[in-house]
Amino acid sequence: MSTTSAQQARRSALDSALDVGRAPFPGAGSNGALQWVDRVLRGTGQVVFQANWLTGLLILVAIGINSPVYLVAAVVGVAASTATALLLRMEHGMVDAGLTGFNGCLFGIGLVAYLSRDFTAGSWPSALVWAYVVVGAAMTTVMLSAIGSLLGSRTTPALTSPFVFTAWIFLFATLRFSRLVPGPLLDPSLPTPLVHGDVYPLGTWFLGTFKGIAEIFFQDNWVSGLVILLAIAVNSRMSALMGLLGSVLGVGVAMLSGARATTIALGLFGFNAALTAMALGGVFFVLNRAGFCYTLFGVVVTVWAWATMSVLLSPVGMPTFTSAFVLVGWVFIIGKAGFRAVVPIDPGLSTYPEDNLRRWRADQLS
Amino acid sequence: MSTTSAQQARRSALDSALDVGRAPFPGAGSNGALQWVDRVLRGTGQVVFQANWLTGLLILVAIGINSPVYLVAAVVGVAASTATALLLRMEHGMVDAGLTGFNGCLFGIGLVAYLSRDFTAGSWPSALVWAYVVVGAAMTTVMLSAIGSLLGSRTTPALTSPFVFTAWIFLFATLRFSRLVPGPLLDPSLPTPLVHGDVYPLGTWFLGTFKGIAEIFFQDNWVSGLVILLAIAVNSRMSALMGLLGSVLGVGVAMLSGARATTIALGLFGFNAALTAMALGGVFFVLNRAGFCYTLFGVVVTVWAWATMSVLLSPVGMPTFTSAFVLVGWVFIIGKAGFRAVVPIDPGLSTYPEDNLRRWRADQLS
Amino acid sequence: MSTTSAQQARRSALDSALDVGRAPFPGAGSNGALQWVDRVLRGTGQVVFQANWLTGLLILVAIGINSPVYLVAAVVGVAASTATALLLRMEHGMVDAGLTGFNGCLFGIGLVAYLSRDFTAGSWPSALVWAYVVVGAAMTTVMLSAIGSLLGSRTTPALTSPFVFTAWIFLFATLRFSRLVPGPLLDPSLPTPLVHGDVYPLGTWFLGTFKGIAEIFFQDNWVSGLVILLAIAVNSRMSALMGLLGSVLGVGVAMLSGARATTIALGLFGFNAALTAMALGGVFFVLNRAGFCYTLFGVVVTVWAWATMSVLLSPVGMPTFTSAFVLVGWVFIIGKAGFRAVVPIDPGLSTYPEDNLRRWRADQLS
Repeated sequence: MSTTSAQQARRSALDSALDVGRAPFPGAGSNGALQWVDRVLRGTGQVVFQANWLTGLLILVAIGINSPVYLVAAVVGVAASTATALLLRMEHGMVDAGLTGFNGCLFGIGLVAYLSRDFTAGSWPSALVWAYVVVGAAMTTVMLSAIGSLLGSRTTPALTSPFVFTAWIFLFATLRFSRLVPGPLLDPSLPTPLVHGDVYPLGTWFLGTFKGIAEIFFQDNWVSGLVILLAIAVNSRMSALMGLLGSVLGVGVAMLSGARATTIALGLFGFNAALTAMALGGVFFVLNRAGFCYTLFGVVVTVWAWATMSVLLSPVGMPTFTSAFVLVGWVFIIGKAGFRAVVPIDPGLSTYPEDNLRRWRADQLS
Repeated sequence: MSTTSAQQARRSALDSALDVGRAPFPGAGSNGALQWVDRVLRGTGQVVFQANWLTGLLILVAIGINSPVYLVAAVVGVAASTATALLLRMEHGMVDAGLTGFNGCLFGIGLVAYLSRDFTAGSWPSALVWAYVVVGAAMTTVMLSAIGSLLGSRTTPALTSPFVFTAWIFLFATLRFSRLVPGPLLDPSLPTPLVHGDVYPLGTWFLGTFKGIAEIFFQDNWVSGLVILLAIAVNSRMSALMGLLGSVLGVGVAMLSGARATTIALGLFGFNAALTAMALGGVFFVLNRAGFCYTLFGVVVTVWAWATMSVLLSPVGMPTFTSAFVLVGWVFIIGKAGFRAVVPIDPGLSTYPEDNLRRWRADQLS
Repeated sequence: MSTTSAQQARRSALDSALDVGRAPFPGAGSNGALQWVDRVLRGTGQVVFQANWLTGLLILVAIGINSPVYLVAAVVGVAASTATALLLRMEHGMVDAGLTGFNGCLFGIGLVAYLSRDFTAGSWPSALVWAYVVVGAAMTTVMLSAIGSLLGSRTTPALTSPFVFTAWIFLFATLRFSRLVPGPLLDPSLPTPLVHGDVYPLGTWFLGTFKGIAEIFFQDNWVSGLVILLAIAVNSRMSALMGLLGSVLGVGVAMLSGARATTIALGLFGFNAALTAMALGGVFFVLNRAGFCYTLFGVVVTVWAWATMSVLLSPVGMPTFTSAFVLVGWVFIIGKAGFRAVVPIDPGLSTYPEDNLRRWRADQLS
């Protein structure tokens, strides 16, 4: 009894402090400009499942220290997709929670990145490309509404699927237009098996893990990855730990299977795995023992599913984005209907892992 | 008040005249053969969303002046898919409205066109190919029933998806059979980026726009396009205008993005855009100001989505058909559930744009 | 009256004898090990829609006489997917009926086969590959639960889709890993049309038909096909006849269309057709006259759909598995909602064709 009380007391103290970022941005209630600041920051935070403007702010810092181009692209993307939701008069609850912004955020960075000559630093886009990015980010909102309606959004989240599908539509198309020039990474070719196993240099694991976190936002920079982990921890230490575990496991499974060392070191085996780990581990399932095992299972499958998506898209030379996470995440979340061993959390009821776990223990989750 | 009355009076006079084509074909009620004439013509008209036998008749004329082969293929396709619906005892309302015929119509022409040595004029098929076309057209009816059931056909129309999916199944297969010979346009290759921008010769816009309308029915002939526009106007001038606007916009967006001039002039950037414009603009959404903007948004995305589908299908060398329209149309129609700014119309309640708008203004649409 | 009574009497005598295999494996009620024997055998039988441990036993014999590797792979697959269902606390009815085992069975054999240097006999996998197979077989159970939930499993069965999707995920991935080596049949290439028609040597039809049955379980051996037909007949002679008819028809349609002789003789045009014939003909539709015609229609389409899937997967060099059956099976089963000419049977109510037909005649099917 006393231990529980002590734990709850400790929780209260720390979480009251952290509640600053969960509450609206200071002044957002009365000032329209500050309300937009809240929307952009919270929308950015929702990419990693955290409805917290402080998380969003730190993520933008993480992006900005790597590339000012991508920082602007992220802000433009969130703003365009959120403005579209307001124009089409979508439900306010979704807009206020940042749920109409995160697909636009990823779309903005992703499109600019794959249309840049230099993927790592990014190139400033032309006016036409900016217009293309704004229309595409707006499209993620229509896509979100459609997918939400198809899946029944009360029980199944759209995850980052609106971003993935819209980005594919807008990126594939560039091969047919001389004024929308695809970057050098978009190179259609038939896939071929790996014949020789790589030796993994010291540092592959470290780079792969932290770039894995950074690649969620297309940043080829391990420092950005570290700052993003910190940004997540500001709202939920459990989510940060799960994200880290996901990326570590992604690298581990890829090494065990004999993936190419350069691909691992770029973080490409980590970013989908990290998202699956955070989504299943605490956000859409209670992170009890069964939920933890279920999450590990999903993470391992995600690593191979990423390889599969990269093979499937090879003949058209297109990137996987977070499709492996969406695929595996959906299967594991929709599959919940048949399993009594795990405790699912409906999207509308989920807050953050620690809080979800606490409410489940107190029988307040339903 | 007086303006409204005058408008309504004017409407009545013109629309009573046009009601001839909306009513059953003369004598169809008592004569089985004439009933089949009604079914074939109305089914053809439904490709462009018009339940009007006069529209269908004029479309068949438009096809016939370009190619007698395609005229016969269209009739065979509508008849085969409609007969299948009757044999399987599908709901009579759907059969009578021509909704079980239009996918067969497109399938008939499409299959024959891509199995012809000369795409523009068409070649007379062998007996085996005719049998193949009939079985495939029959399959569009099963596909229609399945997709309708999956989507919930009361709220979401199948659009031309039964045709697209069935045509892909029947066309891809021909690469594996020596007696079903694919035409010269079916040429698998890896997609490559466009390096040089084209100069657009005078006439590209004109040809692209009217061939864009004609390409809905696979006709590489701008005169056919003009006649098809007239055919649509016989039932709804709004639909005709939206179709024209869609094709014009398709050409415009393609030029702005730097598409290949020959592709534009063939109408390939127009036909999906025209279908999206007619479907969203007046048929499945009330064509008020918000509905008009929503439609323009959808049309622009359709242009790029067509390019995307053509890239995606490049490694197997297969045509996009109307897949870009189906994809964007579905996203924009299914997305309606989340948006209060636009006024959707359930498929079963929609008649034609002018009538839908009038009933909405009179609060009779629900 | 007397004829009916005589028929029922005759039925009772034969079917009482056959009920041995439908009832639990002797001793399974009290002994955990024997319960697992029942689960593995019944799960194997469910691949061909027969909830009968004797069917499963004979199928394992049919596999074993061709390859001990595949025999072990089948057993490992069923066991791993069934154990996952128990661990995740899935509904007991599904586990007991073998419905959580058959996708794992196919996955086990399929993965091992396509990672073997010699497809026909199979090669013993490494420990890493065994682990890969076990994780993948477990994944088929999560996939089954997700697809069942999406489709509404009371009206639409998942068929072998959990196997197909999971096998694609796990097989495509191997091209990216040096320690998971794809077999020689996985060879990405652009598809090309067949220019010359083949002459079909005597025996093509015989080999194609019986290897077609064997290929359901990846066995390149006509004797195995014969034994599998016998195994099916032990539970339902109607199913065995439909399977045989499906395979014969698959070969016939392929010859008529001009398919390559070697492909036909390998049974590749038969196995999907046989599955469609058994699924539609008696299991998910009453095998009355209309049901029989509907089934034939589906079988013919399946043959071409298989060719289509093989073209579609050519650029990534991946096998079709039973995707053509799943695609056509779903369209024909989901399409039932619109057709009054055929009598569908809900998955939960279906037993085996003879019994379904009898209950429908006695008005006991609803």
